[in-house]
Parts: sequence; structure tokens; C-alpha cells
Amino acid sequence: MKDIILPPPETAGGIPLMEAFGKRASHRKCSEKAIDLQDISNLLWSAYGFNRDGFRTAPSSHNRQEMELYIFLKSGVYLYDASGNRLIQKSDGDLRALTGAQDFVAEVPMNIAFVADTSKITGKTPQGVLETIFVDTGFISENIYLYAAGAGLNTVIRAMFDREKLSAALKLRPEQTITMVQSVGHPTLKQ
Amino acid sequence: MKDIILPPPETAGGIPLMEAFGKRASHRKCSEKAIDLQDISNLLWSAYGFNRDGFRTAPSSHNRQEMELYIFLKSGVYLYDASGNRLIQKSDGDLRALTGAQDFVAEVPMNIAFVADTSKITGKTPQGVLETIFVDTGFISENIYLYAAGAGLNTVIRAMFDREKLSAALKLRPEQTITMVQSVGHPTLKQ
Repeated sequence: MKDIILPPPETAGGIPLMEAFGKRASHRKCSEKAIDLQDISNLLWSAYGFNRDGFRTAPSSHNRQEMELYIFLKSGVYLYDASGNRLIQKSDGDLRALTGAQDFVAEVPMNIAFVADTSKITGKTPQGVLETIFVDTGFISENIYLYAAGAGLNTVIRAMFDREKLSAALKLRPEQTITMVQSVGHPTLKQ
Repeated sequence: MKDIILPPPETAGGIPLMEAFGKRASHRKCSEKAIDLQDISNLLWSAYGFNRDGFRTAPSSHNRQEMELYIFLKSGVYLYDASGNRLIQKSDGDLRALTGAQDFVAEVPMNIAFVADTSKITGKTPQGVLETIFVDTGFISENIYLYAAGAGLNTVIRAMFDREKLSAALKLRPEQTITMVQSVGHPTLKQ
């Protein structure tokens, strides 16, 4: 197991915000070309990094920060450590094919599983917990969509995957729930 | 009842995207100063406008676009008509106080209720519908957070409100579900 130290995220610059909204789109087709570490660092910071002391780029209910991002690359599966700006390796297998029912997911260079640690949420009904972890997933996912729009990457969020199988492969605890998965890659030449 | 025709949204410019992620934050305190129509138009387009034929700035499951935005201003309640770029008046009462349990919501210049038309979602379990409408709410809400960050507005999403009372006041159909509410306003002078 080998962690990946990410280069510091580039937290300035980027395309004008209104243009990012203009370009926001879902694209399923990607080339197999790997995403470089600078883009991964920027994308994950945009998605769910710390943008000030104790707070992140995406809100969460009562700032509980119950969401975790599991990153599926060809080289293995990693947990995004936002404060350490690194990817903590959780598996050295190429598990990308497990992240969805559609063929393309196995070859997309990066899939991101949104995992909620529901043990961090207290005082809510089961339905309340569900509402919380899905809306909190949406915040993070939209950041990825907008970063991708600005960086010329393709991305799509997906709800269809075998939750049980994927949870087992990630050795998740019972209180950890995978909400959605998002694929990211470079556009194919044809687009 | 009087609709509000919005000025065309400014779909170019804005702060650099990475700075928007850097400034994304939740702020409860707002002044009572109204938000001008240009900002309302820009904000709603950023949130959930059409950025190309048939598609919006926020994704939705199978592009069903089941979410609707109800806008609470001092002058009444309005439905955002993205294709017509106008606010369709639904009530001429100041119903802002109904959008939350906290005192400040009554004086915030704009509250936005996220309303899902669940009749547009087919082939999902009740839990699947819930997951869909909350993740779809998160996409739109994050766009509002980022627009607000760029425009110097304060915003916060809120889950605590009387769903039954608010639904009755909006005369919603049974298949329409209010997911969350978001407040937007100018910062107070003290900040």
C-alpha cells in the first residue's frame, strides 16, 4: 500500500464563474488517459477541501462533515485526506469496474465514491439521515461538475451500482453508506 | 398577482472559479436590504437556469428536471420560470416567516424553497425518490452558494421548517415535496 502525496491545490485562477455555470454538463464518454496529480489535487480541493479553518468548500448539515471521498484509480482505491492533501491507499486492486453497471466505468481514469459516515449524524430520524447524506453529496458533486467544466474534463454522477458489493470491496463499516459515484476523465478526441 | 420579468442573466464574467470555491461559506446573518433584480436573475440562472438546449446548470436524475424553485420576497411568493426568465407570482403575501424556525428568515430579503415534483420521477422506490430529490437539491444549492460567494451575498441552506404548513401556504399538490430552503441576502455592515 502506498499513499499518494498530492501537489498543493491551485486555489486561485480558473475560468470566470459564470462561464463555469454555462459549461456545466454531464458527459459519460471519456478517454482512458490518466488525470494528472495536479488536476486531481485541484478537483478534490474544489470538491471538498478545506477553504478555511474547520470548514470546507461544500457545506454539510451542522458542519458534521460526514462525507468521505473514495478515489478509484487504475493503481488502486484511495481515501481523500483533505487536511493532509494526500490519497490514503485502501486497496491496491483496480476496482473501477465495481463502481457501476455501465461498461465505461471500468476504463474511466477516475471514479469517486461518495461515502457517508452516518455515525457522525445524531438526533435525526433514518429518513432525516438519508436526506442529509444525499443533499450533502449533491453539494460536493456540483463542485466537481464545475471544476471539470473549467478544466476541460468530462464528468457524470451515477446512482446505479451494486452498493453491497462495492461496500464489501471497500471493507466499509455498517454505518458507512455509499450514496453515489461520479466518473471523471478527459474528453475523447471525437467530442 | 403580478409576475416579475427578470433582466437577462449575465452569463459571462464573475470571479475566477477557484476563488469561488475558496469563498464558499454559510452565513446566517443578512441585512434586510433587497436583492436587485439583476442579482436575482443571475443567481437563479446560476442555480438552475438553462445553459443549453434542454439542459440546466444543475444535473438531475435522467434529466427529469423535477425540481422547482419557489422564491419568497417581501412582495410575495414566486415560481422561477427558467425558460421565460421571470418570476410567476403564486401569492401576494409576505410568507418569508413560514420558511423556517429561526427568526432571521422573516427578514432575509430572499428565501428559496426547493420543491420536487415527484410525479416526474418514475421507476424508483420511495427511498430512491427521496435520494434523487435530495441530491438534486444539493446540486442547485451549491450553485447558489458559489454565485453568492462571487457576488458578495450571504447564503445558508436550511432543513428546519414546517413542511406541512409551508406546503399548505404554497397550495402544493400531494406529489410536490419541499426538500430544503435557502436564504440569501446582503452581508450586514458588521461582517
